[in-house]
Amino acid sequence: MSELRKDPVVGRWVIISTERARRPSDFGPDPVRPRLANCVFCAGHEDKTPPEVWAHRPDGGAANTPGWQVRVVPNKFPALQIEGSLDRRGEGLYDKMNGVGAHEVVIETPDPAQQLADLPAEQIRHVLVAWRERMLDLKNDPRLRYALVFKNHGAGAGATLEHSHSQIIATPIIPRMVQEELDGARRYFELKERPVFSDIIDQETGEGHCRRVVVRTPRYIALAPFAPRFPFETWVLPVARRAAFHTLDDPSEMLELAGILKDTLGRLNAALDSPPYNLVLHTAPLAEPDLPYYHWHLEIMPKLTRVAGFEIGSGFYINPTPPEESAQFLREAGLA
Amino acid sequence: MSELRKDPVVGRWVIISTERARRPSDFGPDPVRPRLANCVFCAGHEDKTPPEVWAHRPDGGAANTPGWQVRVVPNKFPALQIEGSLDRRGEGLYDKMNGVGAHEVVIETPDPAQQLADLPAEQIRHVLVAWRERMLDLKNDPRLRYALVFKNHGAGAGATLEHSHSQIIATPIIPRMVQEELDGARRYFELKERPVFSDIIDQETGEGHCRRVVVRTPRYIALAPFAPRFPFETWVLPVARRAAFHTLDDPSEMLELAGILKDTLGRLNAALDSPPYNLVLHTAPLAEPDLPYYHWHLEIMPKLTRVAGFEIGSGFYINPTPPEESAQFLREAGLA
Repeated sequence: MSELRKDPVVGRWVIISTERARRPSDFGPDPVRPRLANCVFCAGHEDKTPPEVWAHRPDGGAANTPGWQVRVVPNKFPALQIEGSLDRRGEGLYDKMNGVGAHEVVIETPDPAQQLADLPAEQIRHVLVAWRERMLDLKNDPRLRYALVFKNHGAGAGATLEHSHSQIIATPIIPRMVQEELDGARRYFELKERPVFSDIIDQETGEGHCRRVVVRTPRYIALAPFAPRFPFETWVLPVARRAAFHTLDDPSEMLELAGILKDTLGRLNAALDSPPYNLVLHTAPLAEPDLPYYHWHLEIMPKLTRVAGFEIGSGFYINPTPPEESAQFLREAGLA
Repeated sequence: MSELRKDPVVGRWVIISTERARRPSDFGPDPVRPRLANCVFCAGHEDKTPPEVWAHRPDGGAANTPGWQVRVVPNKFPALQIEGSLDRRGEGLYDKMNGVGAHEVVIETPDPAQQLADLPAEQIRHVLVAWRERMLDLKNDPRLRYALVFKNHGAGAGATLEHSHSQIIATPIIPRMVQEELDGARRYFELKERPVFSDIIDQETGEGHCRRVVVRTPRYIALAPFAPRFPFETWVLPVARRAAFHTLDDPSEMLELAGILKDTLGRLNAALDSPPYNLVLHTAPLAEPDLPYYHWHLEIMPKLTRVAGFEIGSGFYINPTPPEESAQFLREAGLA
């Protein structure tokens, strides 16, 4: 029988539709294959993007020239723009403000043939450092309250350029879904005096459980959440509470995170034949890095099913793969 | 400059990205064309679906035989099932219950060549009656708190069968998005002692406004909401407050609604070359039909853009077409 399950943080119910339970081979997304296309993100084309705002250049060199390993540039077609005042105002009963914000692209490698999961952990670490450094910089702008890091991998997940990249959109408001997590985590903390994500990790790793754990390292854990919206949805969290990703400054800890992210993406690629996916980083608001009740985390959502009228109209998701099964497939998809 | 706009009911901010404002011809979805495929929903194939639970047979005739104009059958692959008890229970800190509910298909016409917008208003009225009658029946089951009517039109919007149909999923919980609307409308009512949708309609139709109105009839209005998530998103509402769709029992009022729905879908087809779309009916919970602060309404969302990592991860939508422009295109797309 199908099950209704409630996410313990935001209270969102999902339908785990076990009647039509689906195994990895039942999904047929177009696999994402690397191509050798020469594009505006490739090394040597630095003049085809807006001037870089950050880069990792292990051997030095001038900005906007080759020699970078990771490069951050403003989006050429930004959804929000950095100039101007917010000018919050009404229009009758409505509220609006100017579209002030930042929209940046993190080019994760100079090589168009490599996707994030293919990169060495040390290179992935520099991608994570790029996210952090941009957050630390954007935090200085008092108009910006949040920086959302996300990644669309593959055309099926909305990527318009194949060259491996992630994006950062900084906004003058806290995104709705993050606010719901913050509110839910705060309420749980008020009731229990423990962070909800700590209790989740304790339960998932406790005696007789581990059914939803994909992989763990000393400081991180990858798991299938109890009430996932999407088949094979997988989260990566720090075991010890840390509310804000941008406070993570220990290089060895960052390398460990890069390693578990590479491992998790590799398992998804192996189990699901390189699916398109969306990845998003949920973290504390820029100005509130020390919240005692929140864990930053990564949410990885392979794009295997289509979200249609029911989900769009209700916020209620039907997921045909129980997380206990997706976690098992991913555990068994250990890299050769 | 782009604008951030806040929905006055649920408080959801959206980015209206005027910098990359898009006109109808800029969208390239696959147009939905009628086909003459003979399928399980066609007249004469009544034995290929589960036995019908409701039908409109103008000339009488036995159940599960031809002669129907609208026919409602249980979904052959239901997300939820009607048998069993809810058995709400915990699993450590988690909550779950059995997947009890109903999942039905409303076959809107016996003719595979006709889509909803092509049907005569009188036939569309019978589709609306089917929705209402099923709600009234499902309401008798105390386990079911809500019945969500939705429609996926075209493969691009998630339809798996082309034969024109809508669906009803009845659930033992109130869907999250509906609850957010109910909560927002209640808060507004507590503050203003007026229903928020009444104030919206007043403002949209007031002197010097009407910029977001698509079409209106004496008792209904179709408009582009102030903070739409999607380009060309269009709502149809009753002008006078009515919280629950299933209390609508006046045939002439139902026919007027059928007419404005046909008109609105026809304008979307004309302006956007028969786009795929999702349609959803938001109405009061089954057991609370008299809420003084809520208007039931239809939300029609053409599927023109792809929802990707930013939207999935933040609940924040980027909409490249301001509603003032989409409403104007739809007003001008008057049916020839």
